[in-house]
Amino acid sequence: MPAAAPSAPAAAAHVAAPASSAGTAAPAGTAAIGELNDETLAALDAHWRAANYLSVGQIYLLDNPLLAEPLRPEHIKPRLLGHWGTSPGLNLVYTHLNRAITVRDLDAVCFWGPGHGGPAVLANSWLEGSYSETYPDVTRDAAGMARLFRQFSFPGGVPSHVAPETPGSLHEGGELGYSLSHAYGAALDNPGLLSVCVIGDGEAETGPLAASWHANKFLDPVHDGAVLPVLHLNGYKIANPTVLARLPEPELDAFLRGCGHEPVTVSGDDPMTVHRALAHALDGALDRIALIQREARTEGETRRPRWPMIVLRTPKGWTGPRQVDGQPVEDTWRAHQVPLPAVRENADHLRQLEEWIRSYRPAELFGTDGAPRPRVLAPVPAGARRLGANPHANGGLLLRDLPMPPLEPYAAELPDGRPGAGSHEPTRVLGGMLARLMADTAERRDFRIVGPDETESNRLQDVYEATGKAWQDRTLDTDEHLDRHGRVMETLSEHTCQGWLEGYLLTGRHGLFSCYEAFAHIVDSMVNQHIKWLRVTRELPWRRPIASLNYLLTSHVWRQDHNGFSHQDPGFVDHVLNKAPEVVRVYLPPDANTLLSVADHALRSRDYVNVIVAGKQPCFDWLTLEQARAHCARGAGIWEWAGTDDGTGEPDVVLAAAGDVPTQEVLAAAALLREHLPELSVRVVNVVDLARLLPREEHPHGMPGAEFDALFTADRPVIFAYHGYPWLIHRLAYRRTGHAHLHVRGYKEIGTTTTPFDMVVRNDLDRYRLVMDVIDRVPGLAVRAGAVRQRMEDVRLRHHDWIREHGNDLPEVADWRWTPRGTDGG
Amino acid sequence: MPAAAPSAPAAAAHVAAPASSAGTAAPAGTAAIGELNDETLAALDAHWRAANYLSVGQIYLLDNPLLAEPLRPEHIKPRLLGHWGTSPGLNLVYTHLNRAITVRDLDAVCFWGPGHGGPAVLANSWLEGSYSETYPDVTRDAAGMARLFRQFSFPGGVPSHVAPETPGSLHEGGELGYSLSHAYGAALDNPGLLSVCVIGDGEAETGPLAASWHANKFLDPVHDGAVLPVLHLNGYKIANPTVLARLPEPELDAFLRGCGHEPVTVSGDDPMTVHRALAHALDGALDRIALIQREARTEGETRRPRWPMIVLRTPKGWTGPRQVDGQPVEDTWRAHQVPLPAVRENADHLRQLEEWIRSYRPAELFGTDGAPRPRVLAPVPAGARRLGANPHANGGLLLRDLPMPPLEPYAAELPDGRPGAGSHEPTRVLGGMLARLMADTAERRDFRIVGPDETESNRLQDVYEATGKAWQDRTLDTDEHLDRHGRVMETLSEHTCQGWLEGYLLTGRHGLFSCYEAFAHIVDSMVNQHIKWLRVTRELPWRRPIASLNYLLTSHVWRQDHNGFSHQDPGFVDHVLNKAPEVVRVYLPPDANTLLSVADHALRSRDYVNVIVAGKQPCFDWLTLEQARAHCARGAGIWEWAGTDDGTGEPDVVLAAAGDVPTQEVLAAAALLREHLPELSVRVVNVVDLARLLPREEHPHGMPGAEFDALFTADRPVIFAYHGYPWLIHRLAYRRTGHAHLHVRGYKEIGTTTTPFDMVVRNDLDRYRLVMDVIDRVPGLAVRAGAVRQRMEDVRLRHHDWIREHGNDLPEVADWRWTPRGTDGG
Repeated sequence: MPAAAPSAPAAAAHVAAPASSAGTAAPAGTAAIGELNDETLAALDAHWRAANYLSVGQIYLLDNPLLAEPLRPEHIKPRLLGHWGTSPGLNLVYTHLNRAITVRDLDAVCFWGPGHGGPAVLANSWLEGSYSETYPDVTRDAAGMARLFRQFSFPGGVPSHVAPETPGSLHEGGELGYSLSHAYGAALDNPGLLSVCVIGDGEAETGPLAASWHANKFLDPVHDGAVLPVLHLNGYKIANPTVLARLPEPELDAFLRGCGHEPVTVSGDDPMTVHRALAHALDGALDRIALIQREARTEGETRRPRWPMIVLRTPKGWTGPRQVDGQPVEDTWRAHQVPLPAVRENADHLRQLEEWIRSYRPAELFGTDGAPRPRVLAPVPAGARRLGANPHANGGLLLRDLPMPPLEPYAAELPDGRPGAGSHEPTRVLGGMLARLMADTAERRDFRIVGPDETESNRLQDVYEATGKAWQDRTLDTDEHLDRHGRVMETLSEHTCQGWLEGYLLTGRHGLFSCYEAFAHIVDSMVNQHIKWLRVTRELPWRRPIASLNYLLTSHVWRQDHNGFSHQDPGFVDHVLNKAPEVVRVYLPPDANTLLSVADHALRSRDYVNVIVAGKQPCFDWLTLEQARAHCARGAGIWEWAGTDDGTGEPDVVLAAAGDVPTQEVLAAAALLREHLPELSVRVVNVVDLARLLPREEHPHGMPGAEFDALFTADRPVIFAYHGYPWLIHRLAYRRTGHAHLHVRGYKEIGTTTTPFDMVVRNDLDRYRLVMDVIDRVPGLAVRAGAVRQRMEDVRLRHHDWIREHGNDLPEVADWRWTPRGTDGG
Repeated sequence: MPAAAPSAPAAAAHVAAPASSAGTAAPAGTAAIGELNDETLAALDAHWRAANYLSVGQIYLLDNPLLAEPLRPEHIKPRLLGHWGTSPGLNLVYTHLNRAITVRDLDAVCFWGPGHGGPAVLANSWLEGSYSETYPDVTRDAAGMARLFRQFSFPGGVPSHVAPETPGSLHEGGELGYSLSHAYGAALDNPGLLSVCVIGDGEAETGPLAASWHANKFLDPVHDGAVLPVLHLNGYKIANPTVLARLPEPELDAFLRGCGHEPVTVSGDDPMTVHRALAHALDGALDRIALIQREARTEGETRRPRWPMIVLRTPKGWTGPRQVDGQPVEDTWRAHQVPLPAVRENADHLRQLEEWIRSYRPAELFGTDGAPRPRVLAPVPAGARRLGANPHANGGLLLRDLPMPPLEPYAAELPDGRPGAGSHEPTRVLGGMLARLMADTAERRDFRIVGPDETESNRLQDVYEATGKAWQDRTLDTDEHLDRHGRVMETLSEHTCQGWLEGYLLTGRHGLFSCYEAFAHIVDSMVNQHIKWLRVTRELPWRRPIASLNYLLTSHVWRQDHNGFSHQDPGFVDHVLNKAPEVVRVYLPPDANTLLSVADHALRSRDYVNVIVAGKQPCFDWLTLEQARAHCARGAGIWEWAGTDDGTGEPDVVLAAAGDVPTQEVLAAAALLREHLPELSVRVVNVVDLARLLPREEHPHGMPGAEFDALFTADRPVIFAYHGYPWLIHRLAYRRTGHAHLHVRGYKEIGTTTTPFDMVVRNDLDRYRLVMDVIDRVPGLAVRAGAVRQRMEDVRLRHHDWIREHGNDLPEVADWRWTPRGTDGG
């Protein structure tokens, strides 16, 4: 590959923003590397070589870290693990960011998309000293270097990817696709932050990454920081060339310009040429960013800027072995993991490895004590400016409690305090409270709502009274609520929404993701990674707790009137409940006030993933706010007013519900039983917090056995109406004493065109079916209540014919209301 | 919006390909619409108006379909459901495709990305007659029109989106993002096919769609058909403008050119101007496609072509109400669903609706009998050329059985037939068979393998002996297996891979998706939609069965040596098992030969989603091919050779396994028990087909209770080592008699850096832990076998220290082999 200068001139016309212009004293060393002279380039190269040396050392060396003696097989790790290929490129970017941060006193974080290159980021953290500050036993000397090498991808050590354990990391380096949306999330409401994002050309092929190019249409140059994408074209993924690296250059350029960027290409394989070109390109990009921000912030420019980006074309596995066993390795996919695979067994590989490591000239880089020499450290910024020590990358350090509004002004009033006398759209009620929260964070700007074009559809539109929808492009007179400074983020990509929110939370802010329930599965894999992140950070005392990731799943499975089968899937809850119980919480509030209470709790919480499933359609109000708070605090409880259980003994049957529609059907079934079988003792139980069903040893919210038995009994039939797939309830409760008596009704995969109530009927979750279940399962009732059972069956059949004729539910269903005990003689 | 001609000249220099050049006689009517004169334009407009009329009718009308009398409230549906906004655009494209197909005798299918516009595609199918042929009770007359209207999104009727029930549909119109990858999948190996794809500007924001623009880098102009994307910019999604519609035109143009296309824009709101421009643009694009194909097929051109595409900019809800209640509706997001929401209640809305419907001048379009007039039908192609009748859109019609190779040549040999005497990498063994299948389908070209850059990593590389990896871009000397005509599809987007395969299967071909287990979650939501599709088609006799969607999930949770926690998640199986049991099959072959047998079965099957989880690391061979076949046919069985159960009664304990690593640990535990507790009667059970654990009434593969009890006993402890999350086994088996005695070990969310065996130990699934479980659970054993238990505990502790010292597993684990009964005195 021929070496080349940047393909576009380093925007000399733009305003340079050296450290002095930032208003702070230039840190020590600035002068030495501010000017791009030979000494600066030599320092950059030394830093880069040191990072490369440390990267190779981590992959290979168990001992002899400074190569004080000739390499012998016993110095080599028995299992060679890790990814070399991307590491030199990451080291190059880290090195040059160091210089830029130092010279300009930048407040910067970096998202390492090719996070498989764990050795690189670890190497740089160790060089800059943040590693030893975080892990004092890994000192910045020969002993610490030995530990750094040994621990890498070694039992009891650290992961081979960039991970929560890595200082400065904000992004798990495993699954690809999320780096750029994370980087944008970090930049939101952080006007002073530079959020750099290295995007691998493998990652660039993924859907989530492809979508997130357009996140720049939502970045406010006034209130948000800058995102600087660095597209690293090293040409190969695991075993193939990459699409973007093989495009004709004009096509790639058109693509990136079409994504709204001003790309500058740095390309080459001669280190000093690339150092010079990259330093120029970075200076040019940062000048341009400074100009864009000044124009927007002080000159009132409102057009969406063309943000700069860098295309970095360097060989995969650069500076590694050119050939191994006669096969080309450097600059091919063969450099992806461990280029020399048989070092312990093969003397030739061992020799090649030694040559490779020594090619970095370690004696120039490290003293005999193993400490990096001053020239190596010349580009490194000081203190919290170091990428491994920036507090934004440990967002809990910056997190402030939200100013949670009182709930009372937003609560649904129950006429005369009577359950079921009134109704509200629960998410709309929540929207009132969220609007206030939006208003109360207008100055702080640390709360955002994200959603795939569904905020209004999900009935949260009251928030637009407090803020608009982020939008930087052209607007028309007919547009509503579009706002260059808005804090509601809407784009039709669940991936981008999730990525924004994760990046925002990880940098110490708060938020809510509202989404159609069925389509939350689109981010199954992303939430996996976030839960893993939270799970691991809980064991890292230096990682401070961050705000929870809160999902409001609405437009749920039971009410897809406009859509149907394709929009039905209640399984996101199942997916999430497979993950770490320390992190996962699932709530199914049965009405508006319980939703308020649950959301209030979720927004105050830390380090969780809270999944709240709630309807947007009108729903009876069952509990006052005070009752709702008490119910939510318990997570599950007996609704005495709804049953006929006199509390003096065990009931004949327990009717339980979790979810808003199931709760309504259970109450309607309870009313039918009261009417038709008044002598039956029926207990009504409602579950808000699903994890309460788990044993205590399986989840922190799990109920002790005695409490479970007191609620559900040990031996009476329990008919449980559940919002989602019925077997989830069995999977949670299978260890309970009375499990054999538990019968669950829930969602089935049916998919026909129905009315709302017919949806319930076709899934056998309707009131009539529940009454039949009771009759079938309470011993002795089958014969005695045969006529009642038949009556229930008859209504269901009548309903079937009625809706096909009229297109709407039976009047007795459509007009149903709860009748309190006593008012009907029951 | 000003009307405009195409922004680029309709490539007049290219070779026109009218019907005569296709070698077939021009169908009747060609002459009438071949030339773009006023009569042709009038016919196109009449067809479009008719389709619009029928779309509005479906959303609103319960009766009075021809507006024979003034509209009254009782003619209106009680619940107004559906999506008008996108419908006129879809109608426009359908109309113009009709003309192009007719004039050029094209073999074409269309993917309707904005499939929410169900009324549009249904309207066109009814117009062209394919609807009445498919559903004879919906005749092409007034009575049929009334049925068409009434059934739409009505109880007992048809879904409001494009769906399996829709003739010609290949794509569920619910979740967005997959239309373009589906269209590419359909085009693969269909050289004569034109695969049109209408992409909504909302859908274009999704990650999967954004990634799939680059699918054109993999389309072979020689063996594959053409894909023609039509990006429909109607400007709005549910409640927001769309990103692409608001880009400055040069930026959008750069983006699309950067995606490798030659875009032609058609824009306007004057129907006749748009008709003329769109007809020109379509002609130009089809000429260009014909030229590209000729150059590649007969002139040997090998450069990747710049395929044409159309950008269609027309108003959302075009021709609908301009204003409703003083608010603009046409050309805004308010046109998304039902523009006049209160027609039954509000006389003004009713009047507006009537004006709107009459604006299409129905008397010009339909006879008094309701049949479409000849001019309306002038553009409609004949017979199987109609989009609603093209056999590619009902792929089972074209499906041929695969020439499945004999398995014997590929089977793993067991030395002396002894279990565990040898070992193989199971996926590598499968690769041998797949290579043969690839070779045997070289002419037919109806089998493909897709994967996100993992085919070689997943050890299926033998297939490259038979075919290469599809690749149309520049190649270098160092590249391997890249092949312009290859049938292995690799791009680092699980979404694109899944979309390709779905499109390929739906059009009547076969395939396999190999994927890292953890990252299959990336397509959770896509596989949901495909399973729903298959579930619904089972109830549509006219939809012929298609080949199953086969997943090979490898690089599984237990062996992520290079990666770690981020690559661990066995929950795709849980996700899939929530879906329709008629469709879903899950297999966990314990060794190479069972993998061969299972894969053979899966590739022969129809209408399933088969999930096969199998390792790529060396694995002991337990069964000969013959034994493997028998075992797979049963799906679960006793491995008598592995236990000490003499068959004369119930064993003391059952050790069960599902998955390759669990099987190994169970066998090692059985050997330890034989050694240390020889008097214990141990039964070893292996489960290949996970659904066998379900009750028969829950899944077609479910075992009857008696069979389950015969295998697992009704009352003996069962220690079950399972590949994934342990509670899945409980969720499957909770109704079984002996469920209370079932103890499951499986994967936990731990995430530390380990060796392969330590991964097993840390998840409590190791042989020593299993032996301890047996001792803890077999009545009376705890005291008697206390010393053995302590020994097991000691090895585990020793192991912990050993790996931290040596970085590798204990020798007794690393060197372990199965010892057959008798050879050790046991």
